[in-house]
Amino acid sequence: MKKVTVLGAGSWGTALAMVLAHNGHDVRLWSHRKDQANEINEQQTNDKYLPGIRLPDEITGYHELSLALDNADAVLFVVPTKAMRDVIKQAKEHLTSEQVLMHASKGIEPETHKRISEMIAEELGEPYGEKIVVLSGPSHAEEVALKQPTTVTVSSLQLSESEKAQDLFMNNVFRVYTNEDFIGVEIGGALKNIIALGAGISDGLGYGDNAKAALITRGLAEMAKLGVKLGATPLTFAGLTGIGDLIVTCTSQHSRNYRAGHMLGEGYNLPDVLDKMGMVVEGVRTTKAVHQLAEKEAVDMPITSGIYDLLFEGKDPRQVVDDLMQRGKTNELNALSVDFKN
Amino acid sequence: MKKVTVLGAGSWGTALAMVLAHNGHDVRLWSHRKDQANEINEQQTNDKYLPGIRLPDEITGYHELSLALDNADAVLFVVPTKAMRDVIKQAKEHLTSEQVLMHASKGIEPETHKRISEMIAEELGEPYGEKIVVLSGPSHAEEVALKQPTTVTVSSLQLSESEKAQDLFMNNVFRVYTNEDFIGVEIGGALKNIIALGAGISDGLGYGDNAKAALITRGLAEMAKLGVKLGATPLTFAGLTGIGDLIVTCTSQHSRNYRAGHMLGEGYNLPDVLDKMGMVVEGVRTTKAVHQLAEKEAVDMPITSGIYDLLFEGKDPRQVVDDLMQRGKTNELNALSVDFKN
Repeated sequence: MKKVTVLGAGSWGTALAMVLAHNGHDVRLWSHRKDQANEINEQQTNDKYLPGIRLPDEITGYHELSLALDNADAVLFVVPTKAMRDVIKQAKEHLTSEQVLMHASKGIEPETHKRISEMIAEELGEPYGEKIVVLSGPSHAEEVALKQPTTVTVSSLQLSESEKAQDLFMNNVFRVYTNEDFIGVEIGGALKNIIALGAGISDGLGYGDNAKAALITRGLAEMAKLGVKLGATPLTFAGLTGIGDLIVTCTSQHSRNYRAGHMLGEGYNLPDVLDKMGMVVEGVRTTKAVHQLAEKEAVDMPITSGIYDLLFEGKDPRQVVDDLMQRGKTNELNALSVDFKN
Repeated sequence: MKKVTVLGAGSWGTALAMVLAHNGHDVRLWSHRKDQANEINEQQTNDKYLPGIRLPDEITGYHELSLALDNADAVLFVVPTKAMRDVIKQAKEHLTSEQVLMHASKGIEPETHKRISEMIAEELGEPYGEKIVVLSGPSHAEEVALKQPTTVTVSSLQLSESEKAQDLFMNNVFRVYTNEDFIGVEIGGALKNIIALGAGISDGLGYGDNAKAALITRGLAEMAKLGVKLGATPLTFAGLTGIGDLIVTCTSQHSRNYRAGHMLGEGYNLPDVLDKMGMVVEGVRTTKAVHQLAEKEAVDMPITSGIYDLLFEGKDPRQVVDDLMQRGKTNELNALSVDFKN
């Protein structure tokens, strides 16, 4: 039994806290909102993020970061990309070099184009940067909370750290694989949210499953193309954190990014969509960051470009999807060879 | 304008006949059932397979094979694997060596383990074997009939033949790519029906999207593993006829194989399921063929094995899925490297 602190009490942070609690660990779930921490302690619920779910007694809500982190064996960051640096800065003085340090957030930071692990390493300095573990994969929080079978991947620059994370989370219904392609695992989780916006837009426009499957297929190649350029292993994109997570995010109403895209396809504008969602839609911010990064790296990413134009330049959603469908390349294997080349 | 004969008036044959008709070709749609050919001619409908759809006037129904094939510029076979050899034998004397010869069926023949193109080549002899074109990709017939945007791949041993097929079918909403990996394109279309049975079983058991995404991811690797062993290019499995077709078949109620799997997961036995479906479920036959082929080639295919045990050995569906979820490998990249190795 370990003391594990989960920083961030959104849907995913809470669901992962439940997995840890089911495994018998002593879990402290920190929220930046005092009323949410109180709700967790007084009612054992987190109703805004996991409605109708009763949290195990092993989960305690915290609002004081110093108390939440006191004497912890492991720390998991699960806050939106936007809040990540703030939370790390506050947490820094309470961390120790013996702790297992993990994150399960998905995004790329605009302007700096850093992955989450790079942001964490930068804020914390040595020796933390070498030991951060990322947890990613096809996993709706709602299903994990209900103990539905789920598989995820953990990755780190140090296999021993990945294995510590694997030990904390692994059980019969939550299977944890290791993958040493740290960049690929982290990039897949971030980029799939852009493609999920696109899949939602296609459905929102009234296009069918054929069009969406083509878009997802093309999206996977686009993810691999940037990932490989940044140092990822192409095969990772054929795995749980690539195609697996992409499928689950693009084909399910559980996915916020998909739902946001659906509303955009129906004709709502971005401010209205974000207002209606009431939760963070990481794909919007990630689209901006990846659009910048693709330009910097000179990687052609037509889906990301199209969605960027829709989100930030007012391009018509139908025009975006139609332009993608009409693209010129007619030899498939040549195109794939370019995108997935190592 | 070409004269194109479509042999097989099921959902997919009829939808492809519609694409050809929309492109201005003179289309003869052959059915082995006289009443169906009559319905096509008298009502311009094919209600059992595409309910509510009016067929373009350029489509004429035929029941006499000799008349259907007379003076045709191109011939498309779209009959169930089970009926394929019979139809080829009947068609043989009416074919000429100048015709474009295509097929859009998906399966592997039990006992011989031949792909559709190999069955056709064997029955027809030289020079046809070298020029058969396969058309495959993520494409529900119902959506194609409604002119929903769709992308498919054509492949042949001769690029010039693929390009002739591409010219016949390509239009603004039906995009056709070429791919020279003939084996990979054909194998992907056949094997995805097995994984679709599995996805349906998982959903039918009440498991969620996380479990299904894991199964599909694992299924893609399993498809690639056998495909590569048979001579396919691994990258093809990352394309339209691999992951694209797999997604569309595993996540949509349109898919017969998915629906059959769903009923199996709910507890119906195979004869009842086939009875309720009332149409051919290719995945059942393909499972048998691929199970034999995997043994012959000594390729470990756990999903195919599990579904074979369920279909033909009475294994409990929950046990099949649970066994798959619990499998031992814990390093993801190593596993993928083995499966996709060229």
